[in-house]
Amino acid sequence: MTSELKTSGQALPRGFRWAAVKAGIKASGNLDVAVAVADKVANAAAMFTKNQVVAAPVTVGRRHLISTDGRVSTVLVNAGNANCATGQPGIDACLETCVAAAEMFHCIFDEVFPSSTGIIGVPFPSDKVVAALPAVEAALGSTAAHAELFAQAIMTTDTKMKVARAVIDVDGVEVVIFGAAKGAGMIHPQLGGPVGPPHATMLVYLFTDLEAASAQLRSLLEPAVERSFNCISIDGDTSTNDTVLLLASGASGVRLDDRVCEAFENALKLVCGSLAHQIVDDGEGVTHVVTLHVTGARTEAEAKQVAKAIAHSPLCKTAWSSADPNWGRLLAAAGYSGVEFDPTLVTIAIGEQPVFEGGMRSPAFDEAAAHAVMKRREYTIALDLGQGNAECRFVTCDFTEEYVRINADYST
Amino acid sequence: MTSELKTSGQALPRGFRWAAVKAGIKASGNLDVAVAVADKVANAAAMFTKNQVVAAPVTVGRRHLISTDGRVSTVLVNAGNANCATGQPGIDACLETCVAAAEMFHCIFDEVFPSSTGIIGVPFPSDKVVAALPAVEAALGSTAAHAELFAQAIMTTDTKMKVARAVIDVDGVEVVIFGAAKGAGMIHPQLGGPVGPPHATMLVYLFTDLEAASAQLRSLLEPAVERSFNCISIDGDTSTNDTVLLLASGASGVRLDDRVCEAFENALKLVCGSLAHQIVDDGEGVTHVVTLHVTGARTEAEAKQVAKAIAHSPLCKTAWSSADPNWGRLLAAAGYSGVEFDPTLVTIAIGEQPVFEGGMRSPAFDEAAAHAVMKRREYTIALDLGQGNAECRFVTCDFTEEYVRINADYST
Repeated sequence: MTSELKTSGQALPRGFRWAAVKAGIKASGNLDVAVAVADKVANAAAMFTKNQVVAAPVTVGRRHLISTDGRVSTVLVNAGNANCATGQPGIDACLETCVAAAEMFHCIFDEVFPSSTGIIGVPFPSDKVVAALPAVEAALGSTAAHAELFAQAIMTTDTKMKVARAVIDVDGVEVVIFGAAKGAGMIHPQLGGPVGPPHATMLVYLFTDLEAASAQLRSLLEPAVERSFNCISIDGDTSTNDTVLLLASGASGVRLDDRVCEAFENALKLVCGSLAHQIVDDGEGVTHVVTLHVTGARTEAEAKQVAKAIAHSPLCKTAWSSADPNWGRLLAAAGYSGVEFDPTLVTIAIGEQPVFEGGMRSPAFDEAAAHAVMKRREYTIALDLGQGNAECRFVTCDFTEEYVRINADYST
Repeated sequence: MTSELKTSGQALPRGFRWAAVKAGIKASGNLDVAVAVADKVANAAAMFTKNQVVAAPVTVGRRHLISTDGRVSTVLVNAGNANCATGQPGIDACLETCVAAAEMFHCIFDEVFPSSTGIIGVPFPSDKVVAALPAVEAALGSTAAHAELFAQAIMTTDTKMKVARAVIDVDGVEVVIFGAAKGAGMIHPQLGGPVGPPHATMLVYLFTDLEAASAQLRSLLEPAVERSFNCISIDGDTSTNDTVLLLASGASGVRLDDRVCEAFENALKLVCGSLAHQIVDDGEGVTHVVTLHVTGARTEAEAKQVAKAIAHSPLCKTAWSSADPNWGRLLAAAGYSGVEFDPTLVTIAIGEQPVFEGGMRSPAFDEAAAHAVMKRREYTIALDLGQGNAECRFVTCDFTEEYVRINADYST
């Protein structure tokens, strides 16, 4: 059994159809309503933001997964309005769109899984979504072009469509995972279990034709998310709408059993890892993608805590934007992470270039060589805490004037 | 007994002399070594950064305060090199400067309190400091001009000198507090007790001619710092060298007793509050100073936790830079602060303008009016959590393209 990651290609899971239309929610007039329909009801697992403030579709989506015990027939996504901080009218508006979608796509009401992304606090135009559904129905199809239109319609400030595919060969039968994601800003996903609260910007939809129960899907989704989407940050702002949804149609006829489990698990991790990386690479204003490899920690949680302090430090992030090997900022951020460590045991390297060891600048420090590494679009910073065997890889990015321009674009 | 805050004026505590010279540490060639000398040894209390990574002068300063039981004769500060992440050679270099200063200013070695600010990880040029001491000695004096040169020499990217004064009238005798501070970047002080670890950018020196024991000074300094310097943030980066030092010469002849305590405590809070505000106002690239007034919290710690999440959110800070009343970002940041609350009980106002209540946009929301408030250089954002009586005021600032330029100025 082999699993293979494909970011291009045409492979798609059987049992789904996709469509996207322009409903007039985005000011740009671009595609803004995306729908995926399972031919037969799919088994599903979802994870949502841990933010205390949650968009209406997150509240409704959670409720629906509970009442159906993890079954989804229709995924209904809009971009341009987050339907967050919209009170009971926002919930009512979301429910209205679910009712209309259930009727249009012939499923029961709570088998509709809604998602929204966009501005917070603006009343939700459910009428525009409802009015667009007949056009969606007419546009549904199962080709790669259909799936990619779905991926394009969910974009907000993203500049590129984000998709990834993996294919597993099971005795000559192909099992496919297709994932579509959006990101760009308000990206520091902290995804937790399906029961609890989410305001929203990272949306990820994973479709497979494997046959698996919802509980099985949940147990596979959590570790895959923990080391992918929960290990990235663009700006440290955890959104109110972050959602990862995994749907299994069963249409391949291959069941998730011990024989298939490891290959599928690996394939799922590959797809999640690729999408997470694509999200950072297309982050607002990003010119450098930096992987923080923290090792020598007592626990993985502490390794992540150190990585996050660095990933969220404006001083580190601005230095990366100019390829400035100012490693003292890395050390200072680690120092205020809240993790206890002995600075004299710490080593730091930028790419292959050692910069800090034994409590001071490495004797091998070569500023020009470190600067050369940092001029690449992608590189790794390795920090070893010297006090254990736990580690993490955390993918983040620089902080540029363009980020500020994108997010301060209010015109009077 | 009255206390009065003065940011201008000439009042100075008796018992101190100040000087500043150019020692060639700053690349700009500006004043970079500042010294304060107590005529007789002063009683002292200090607080240092809680960062795990600490500059050499912080290690040495802590050790000296312990060995002298809180007495300081000479304060020796340099700007341009933080003497942090410099290992044992950095400690040795710091000690060398203390030895030379003790000889020059006629005190015992561990009555010298060293501080450094500047770049991290570059070997410390103790020879330059030592060579400058005769010029310092020749320049010492007790006028306002002398004290203000001290305040200027400790600046790094600061654009303005930061000083504040308070005067208490005790039966016709004036007791004076004079404070000098630097800030600008890497500003999110988290100051703790004198025993423990600090890399450095906020430096604050408070001089008074009150007569008080070190233990009394410590008990007054901690609450004053907690609600001033520990309630500000420019970029969320907690430095490795943050230091607040309070020195009491006793030269007024007025003793700290029950009669004087409250007035002095208030005066100290006024001076600390003024300096903390000046630091944010002169932060790197700052165009708006925002006070976050979080109320209705269960504890003051939770109020501060919500304020910090907002103060460190790049999306909130960039919206402030363009006076964009995008209040959804405030709510989202509060939501991921880690404090549990019920969004339907939360109210948010920008200046006098209500923007959020009852789980949704306030019916009174007036975008143009909120925008008008945010165009002011200074305003308050009030957020009530609706679940208790605790509160905090946290002073922070916007995030601008200029901040990115200042901190990404590495030239190849």
